[in-house]
Amino acid sequence: MSKRGPLRPKITGFQHPFPPSAGTFKRSNMLKKYIMAPGPTPIPAEVLAEASFPIIHHRTPQFQAIFKAANDGLQLFFRTKNQVMTFASVGTGAMESAIANLTSPGEKILVASSGHFGNRWAEIAKAYSVQAELYESEWGYAIDVEEVRKRLKASPDVKIVFTTLNETSTGVLNDIQTLTKIVHEAGAIIVVDAISGLGAAPFETDAWGVDVVLSGSQKGFMIPPGLAFVAINQAGIEKNKVAKNPRFYFSYEKALKKLTEEKMPDTPWTPAISLIIQLKKALELIHQEGMEAVWKRHAALAKATRAGVEALGLKLFAPTAPSPALTSVITVDGVDSGLINKTFRDTYGISIAGGQGKQKGKIFRLGHLGYADGSDIILEIARLEMVLHKVGKKVVLGSGVKAVEEILLAENL
Amino acid sequence: MSKRGPLRPKITGFQHPFPPSAGTFKRSNMLKKYIMAPGPTPIPAEVLAEASFPIIHHRTPQFQAIFKAANDGLQLFFRTKNQVMTFASVGTGAMESAIANLTSPGEKILVASSGHFGNRWAEIAKAYSVQAELYESEWGYAIDVEEVRKRLKASPDVKIVFTTLNETSTGVLNDIQTLTKIVHEAGAIIVVDAISGLGAAPFETDAWGVDVVLSGSQKGFMIPPGLAFVAINQAGIEKNKVAKNPRFYFSYEKALKKLTEEKMPDTPWTPAISLIIQLKKALELIHQEGMEAVWKRHAALAKATRAGVEALGLKLFAPTAPSPALTSVITVDGVDSGLINKTFRDTYGISIAGGQGKQKGKIFRLGHLGYADGSDIILEIARLEMVLHKVGKKVVLGSGVKAVEEILLAENL
Repeated sequence: MSKRGPLRPKITGFQHPFPPSAGTFKRSNMLKKYIMAPGPTPIPAEVLAEASFPIIHHRTPQFQAIFKAANDGLQLFFRTKNQVMTFASVGTGAMESAIANLTSPGEKILVASSGHFGNRWAEIAKAYSVQAELYESEWGYAIDVEEVRKRLKASPDVKIVFTTLNETSTGVLNDIQTLTKIVHEAGAIIVVDAISGLGAAPFETDAWGVDVVLSGSQKGFMIPPGLAFVAINQAGIEKNKVAKNPRFYFSYEKALKKLTEEKMPDTPWTPAISLIIQLKKALELIHQEGMEAVWKRHAALAKATRAGVEALGLKLFAPTAPSPALTSVITVDGVDSGLINKTFRDTYGISIAGGQGKQKGKIFRLGHLGYADGSDIILEIARLEMVLHKVGKKVVLGSGVKAVEEILLAENL
Repeated sequence: MSKRGPLRPKITGFQHPFPPSAGTFKRSNMLKKYIMAPGPTPIPAEVLAEASFPIIHHRTPQFQAIFKAANDGLQLFFRTKNQVMTFASVGTGAMESAIANLTSPGEKILVASSGHFGNRWAEIAKAYSVQAELYESEWGYAIDVEEVRKRLKASPDVKIVFTTLNETSTGVLNDIQTLTKIVHEAGAIIVVDAISGLGAAPFETDAWGVDVVLSGSQKGFMIPPGLAFVAINQAGIEKNKVAKNPRFYFSYEKALKKLTEEKMPDTPWTPAISLIIQLKKALELIHQEGMEAVWKRHAALAKATRAGVEALGLKLFAPTAPSPALTSVITVDGVDSGLINKTFRDTYGISIAGGQGKQKGKIFRLGHLGYADGSDIILEIARLEMVLHKVGKKVVLGSGVKAVEEILLAENL
């Protein structure tokens, strides 16, 4: 030791960006953190790194080239040749944009909902003085397409239907292809909240003729929250022209003008530059894999998760129309699902999701959305076995993982 | 060289994240890039790095602690004990939020504008069926506070005034302290777009009694675009309660409820997690420096910039109420200011800003906002000398820099 003191200085006031949580367990505080929720989803290291480059100005050829590439990638992701608008917002802002841009005060609309997020359409409609007829399926079940047909027949004045691709609160996937057909037969257009479903479930905006499709960045796009996207076809644009509700920041007219009027696409307001740079990178990774491969991977991961859950004697909450983005599971008898969540998080560093709305405490939700592969499912189910053990449910350790591995071997994942 | 080929593989298909621009000049393509615009502004490396950590879930104690710290830092930044709401949006969304949350259809409001961004208040009001009386000062000059007093006297039915702290399009700083006094004397409340001015100009939300103040992240906050902030006092909350225009995503009721109803502040929708983590870090740096020191630094940098510009024989566009965030300069006779901009960018890698609206082609704008110090001004003015030389204006190289150095020595910067 020199006279100046120890060579290795004592570190004081060091703040870890992710401080260990205030759990009551005793273990090493080296706790690896995982996100296994249906959003925000994990972000590839290459995409994280993009945000660490110095910011660039948005009115430069450099950024314009990045935005153009991101835009092209979005169209491939949405499977559309139509414009896809990008807003600095999260998904709820995109939902509001659809009500504000596509409806008028006093207008009657149909909301076809399968849960908490589907119902949000009706809440937003109310704020905009739009009369929403709310059809809500039993939670855990998909929207009954025949019920939608019946309701549209009974309300010929409804010219627009709002619905959900993947109902994140229940883990249900709705049949948008059939719904679109039924809505079009009734002379209406369809607006689909595909926030958590796009990139997980096969979705063909143009081939199915879906009029308006919206999504958010922290789901299948593998980037942080803060961007929302809206794809719109000509029928949607026509409805926009006659819709009288107020809009400015989310104005489709302004956004479409900036996307199309110049040689390079642009935005009316300053874009969320760093997130768009990350988006471009993430879309490159996604399209290198290929959309069909992405969909197949999600289907296989969902299948493996369900097999693991059922092998442990647990019941699926949405057995008939399960989502490829997340698996919702009914909690163990007598155990609040919040405790399962908390044990996952505090003991094993894994963020899963709990129940929402009327399912709070009753279900927990395992995500397998975005940047997820077979190894994530092995880990998720193995830790589930240990969590169940801790909350007092008898399980054969390894039995869930065995079921997962069998599916992964069969699916080559 | 081994049989396998050269040890150093040829890099093919390499994409640089910031490709050199398509300028026509011949020089090395090693071009360092600088942002010297009034937004987006440069981001400290420590803040950039925060975005490269794995994402964390927003419904966790870890994120809640970060959001709480960011919130506390925002209140210090706004100099208020009132709530400051955070939205995933850029500044225009925050402006729209104020119209949607604080006015009713048919209501008469006064817009006191000093340029392009001030006029935006009237555009948004129109979209929301609000009758905006627009008072616009001559561009390059501040709002005449006596004119505001006169107009409020003539329109006693106006209960809310919308204005701008720092008019980014002209480089003018308005006297918000006096305006607030006048507006309050008339029995109205004041809403201030402080998007580009907060953190540059001294601003005392509580001491001056400013009712509603909004800002955006890519300016004085030293983080990327994508967050908008709104501080509101009790008078603002009362106006919000009676305001009938529609809002949902930007609802102040919902945002305030989530900020205050639980032990830890929260947001109604998924927040822009990565940007909030960066915000917390940036606010730590800012408060280590101290708000008074930040304001003093901006005043000195602005003074040095003006001295440099004038020493080169150029005329300031806003000589009577110059902004501490940016300096707007009248272009050289016969030279479109766009060429000055383009030369800065393509030849020297520096993004400055051009003229907007009716000043397009006539002025250019030099930023000194956020993460800027004396070295930035030396560079900015030195490169300006070289740009002027290139566009054919006779200048004594070094004479602008001399004037800058004199100020910096006097100001200890």
